[in-house]
Amino acid sequence: MKKVKIGLLGMGNIGTGSYKVLHMNHGHILETTGLDLEITKVLEVLVDRDRGIPIPKEIFTQDFEDILNDPEISIVIELLGGYEPATTYMEQCLEKGKHVVTANKAAVAANWERITAAAEKGGSLFRFEASVGGGIPCINAITTQLSANVITEVMGILNGTTNYILTKMGEEGKEYGEALKEAQEKGFAEADPTADVEGHDVANKLSILMSLCFGKRVHPDDIPTTGITDITKEDIADAESQGCVIKLIANGVRNGDEVTCFIQPTYINKNHPLAGVKNEFNALFLKGNAVDDVMMYGKGAGPFPTASAVLGDVIEVAKLV
Amino acid sequence: MKKVKIGLLGMGNIGTGSYKVLHMNHGHILETTGLDLEITKVLEVLVDRDRGIPIPKEIFTQDFEDILNDPEISIVIELLGGYEPATTYMEQCLEKGKHVVTANKAAVAANWERITAAAEKGGSLFRFEASVGGGIPCINAITTQLSANVITEVMGILNGTTNYILTKMGEEGKEYGEALKEAQEKGFAEADPTADVEGHDVANKLSILMSLCFGKRVHPDDIPTTGITDITKEDIADAESQGCVIKLIANGVRNGDEVTCFIQPTYINKNHPLAGVKNEFNALFLKGNAVDDVMMYGKGAGPFPTASAVLGDVIEVAKLV
Repeated sequence: MKKVKIGLLGMGNIGTGSYKVLHMNHGHILETTGLDLEITKVLEVLVDRDRGIPIPKEIFTQDFEDILNDPEISIVIELLGGYEPATTYMEQCLEKGKHVVTANKAAVAANWERITAAAEKGGSLFRFEASVGGGIPCINAITTQLSANVITEVMGILNGTTNYILTKMGEEGKEYGEALKEAQEKGFAEADPTADVEGHDVANKLSILMSLCFGKRVHPDDIPTTGITDITKEDIADAESQGCVIKLIANGVRNGDEVTCFIQPTYINKNHPLAGVKNEFNALFLKGNAVDDVMMYGKGAGPFPTASAVLGDVIEVAKLV
Repeated sequence: MKKVKIGLLGMGNIGTGSYKVLHMNHGHILETTGLDLEITKVLEVLVDRDRGIPIPKEIFTQDFEDILNDPEISIVIELLGGYEPATTYMEQCLEKGKHVVTANKAAVAANWERITAAAEKGGSLFRFEASVGGGIPCINAITTQLSANVITEVMGILNGTTNYILTKMGEEGKEYGEALKEAQEKGFAEADPTADVEGHDVANKLSILMSLCFGKRVHPDDIPTTGITDITKEDIADAESQGCVIKLIANGVRNGDEVTCFIQPTYINKNHPLAGVKNEFNALFLKGNAVDDVMMYGKGAGPFPTASAVLGDVIEVAKLV
């Protein structure tokens, strides 16, 4: 049995989900891995928020230094979101030799060099499975199980909001505005849906994939991106007449030494496995020069699926250290 | 740069595929991981077989002890297939501190206790990603990325031959015998297809999944198994009339402390992601209590996809040692 103490930065929805999943499955994880994982400090201002689970007040702190300087904490989970202070906190933890696990796609995509340099400097591990595809095992599949492949192509449905809207337009003949409204009512789209429907959320994820699959850094702002706001019932019908559905696809392609990437609504043949990825589900489809076609499918968002990926990273890191 | 010397047991189709993929991607693996992997000894009688790639004759041996006692070899890939001498060789390597990677589902399923005990005794790593689902990243996903979950259900399409036959029956209205003949002509079924069509091949894979997903040992012979030989055109039409397709499904279900498993042709609703898994493709569908539904899809057989999984394991092990 190995006791591992964890610091958590941020206890919003994903942080709360991670705390709950660890509480729910603590015994199972201990039994199957020998790891006794415990979140001993939480950086969060909103101490009294009702999270639906009792959390001892004494583990909350409002001072990041309490976690950074706690010698007993070996792993820090960053779930603050946004660029700062998340990036600086991750950097400081990594440089100090603490291992970092995050779900923060924006920070990882924008500040890849800073974060990986800090990990190298501190000899620390950095894991970010949850940053792309939520609970879907894809990031670590690329870096481990598929690492013997030269990956030649990536196609991802990496945003649940847009996939939900496109599914409703395709299956129920809804117009874009109507499907968006339904997505908002069901909690699959935010009040201001811009980041999702314009493809900016996907750009962060594709940027991360470009680094991993092709060793090529592309800043999210530099990825040619077309969202789904101009898709009409007529477009959907035209796709249908050609045996296709329209999906918002994040594309990355290797041609010899050249790599290109873009995000755009794309006709997908109904026989392609990505065509069956419906509603809020996500999937990552890859081609490798040994494995050929591979697809990983699941829930790309939500507190519990995201917590699954976060804690999977924590367990992997805890086994290694 | 880390030089890692590998012993290979058996150079049939999968062994040859692994040698070819390593040759093809050696530079890429070196560049991305810093690992300089080399197969330095091969246990194989058929030295002169034309494998479509030049292989130095001096690396062949007919004596297993040459590999077992080579202190420079730290990883042994077992691709002999069958129960013996594969199991004994793996045991001896593991006990001697050599790490073992295999694709041998029959040996792993039948002799799980012996092999894992040998790994523990020798302090060695044992990896078998390729034993279930060929190139699909699934085994290591269960043991790492999904390890924070209590897995409650497993449903797998884990045999390409039967899935090819059922797809042809469903999409082209063929009778079983006709579809089997076509599968044999295309190389997706063997001359004696018994092990595939009766479900015995799948039983080995489900046995391995039961150990990993539920911590429950079930010998393949003890899994209630129904193959596809009795499926008729009429059955397919009946499924179709209910909005379903028929798939040969390996099932494992956890109900509290109880776990059940069986293999049988099953009606799958066309909206279920497994319904879109066609022809020779395989997929593993899982439910976890955090991640919810997840599916991994790809080629469940073939020299290159299988080599992708074998070498992915080799790379993971080589990084750790």
